[in-house]
Amino acid sequence: MDVDTREGPRLGDAFGATLLACLEAGSRPGTVREIVERDDGYLDGQDALFYFLPSEQWDALDHWLVDRAAGHALDVGSGAGRVALHLQDQGHAVTALDISPAACEVCRRRGVCTVVEGTVFELLGPASEPQFDSVLMLGNNLGLLESRRHAPLLLGALATLTRPGALILGRGTDPYATENPLHLRYHARNEVLGRMGGQIRIRVRYHDTATPYFDYLFESIDELRILLSGTGWTLEEYTQDGPSYGVVLSKRKG
Amino acid sequence: MDVDTREGPRLGDAFGATLLACLEAGSRPGTVREIVERDDGYLDGQDALFYFLPSEQWDALDHWLVDRAAGHALDVGSGAGRVALHLQDQGHAVTALDISPAACEVCRRRGVCTVVEGTVFELLGPASEPQFDSVLMLGNNLGLLESRRHAPLLLGALATLTRPGALILGRGTDPYATENPLHLRYHARNEVLGRMGGQIRIRVRYHDTATPYFDYLFESIDELRILLSGTGWTLEEYTQDGPSYGVVLSKRKG
Repeated sequence: MDVDTREGPRLGDAFGATLLACLEAGSRPGTVREIVERDDGYLDGQDALFYFLPSEQWDALDHWLVDRAAGHALDVGSGAGRVALHLQDQGHAVTALDISPAACEVCRRRGVCTVVEGTVFELLGPASEPQFDSVLMLGNNLGLLESRRHAPLLLGALATLTRPGALILGRGTDPYATENPLHLRYHARNEVLGRMGGQIRIRVRYHDTATPYFDYLFESIDELRILLSGTGWTLEEYTQDGPSYGVVLSKRKG
Repeated sequence: MDVDTREGPRLGDAFGATLLACLEAGSRPGTVREIVERDDGYLDGQDALFYFLPSEQWDALDHWLVDRAAGHALDVGSGAGRVALHLQDQGHAVTALDISPAACEVCRRRGVCTVVEGTVFELLGPASEPQFDSVLMLGNNLGLLESRRHAPLLLGALATLTRPGALILGRGTDPYATENPLHLRYHARNEVLGRMGGQIRIRVRYHDTATPYFDYLFESIDELRILLSGTGWTLEEYTQDGPSYGVVLSKRKG
């Protein structure tokens, strides 16, 4: 019989489904939560409305970053399109990029003009031209650096896709600014596994679906400096708000 | 090295930890959610404050049930003690029973006088006397009937623990009053596995802990009638509010 008797969630676009449900519930607070599960079982949640907030409701760090955007912008991990919409309203050319089909659908429905479903690496065609001047990685999306192994690959691809003088405007979190024993235990576990302390393996869950597990990197500013060495990018400026920080990375003249 | 590199949550008293966190956060709305995971991966949540609500904030069905309590009451699955506290305030003798150590701690801190950590079966000592006149199973706790196999065992134990004329005041939910495809798919899966349609296998999660999976039974009134046959209990009265219902079961004169 064609009945699924598995234990645990089905693989699916749980992140996009979360955003779509929030949109369809009228983007009101308290209706849909984004549930993130770390591979040690730690569950965390936040109101999915975060991804829909208009710029008037952003914090100072987000403004500090987007105000530095110039030229053609690439919004990496665009979610529900809050950053892309804001830049578009400001008159920028923006390409919203997200791996989640339903997140792309949400971006389109909300009026983002250029939406690409995929990863940064998929933008690298055989005939890809450097076309972007700013790369936005807000909402902790420096986490997409993933790991020691992956960070230079992503930074290299972004160097190929951007024009001279381009900036990466990224936001991250220092994982070590915590006393939460669950997180301290996770850092220790990562050390044993040869991973970076703040390299979390997570998945998003929605109803009975889950994304595949993926690595997401919380790194200190010092760790970020090390990850940048040997890549085409330099740490130009940063600003902090508690454990959260924004960075401006500039492309080396080459 | 003594570092835990498991995948998935640790076994623990996640239900009690949820209640304790809610109590320690001041029992305010929106601070702690109870997260329930079904074994198909379906995640559901509700504000943990539900377990703390004073009787003025209960619905009519809860009042319909507690107003029928008489004599010495046993509150089965007492959670944070909302039912036990209300009955105690009304002058009843009440024993709060919960399998969760931290839930028992919450009951004690909130002023429940008699709290027992354990199951109904653990109340059955070799010299146990029938001592209860009312058994309260609010908040869907008819779900503790678990399954076709377990229901008569629990009902039998409750018959042994209660005096002549005793009542079970229970609340349940008809699982078939849904059009949610996730639930309909789960019913079909249960049928394949030889389980009752609304027999859900769930666990509670909190941070990086989870309870063991346990069966919890949503049954229609008709299914409940069948489960009662051959036990010491008769369906005396019931009242419905959408898919949710309250029942009064009376102990057969014997």
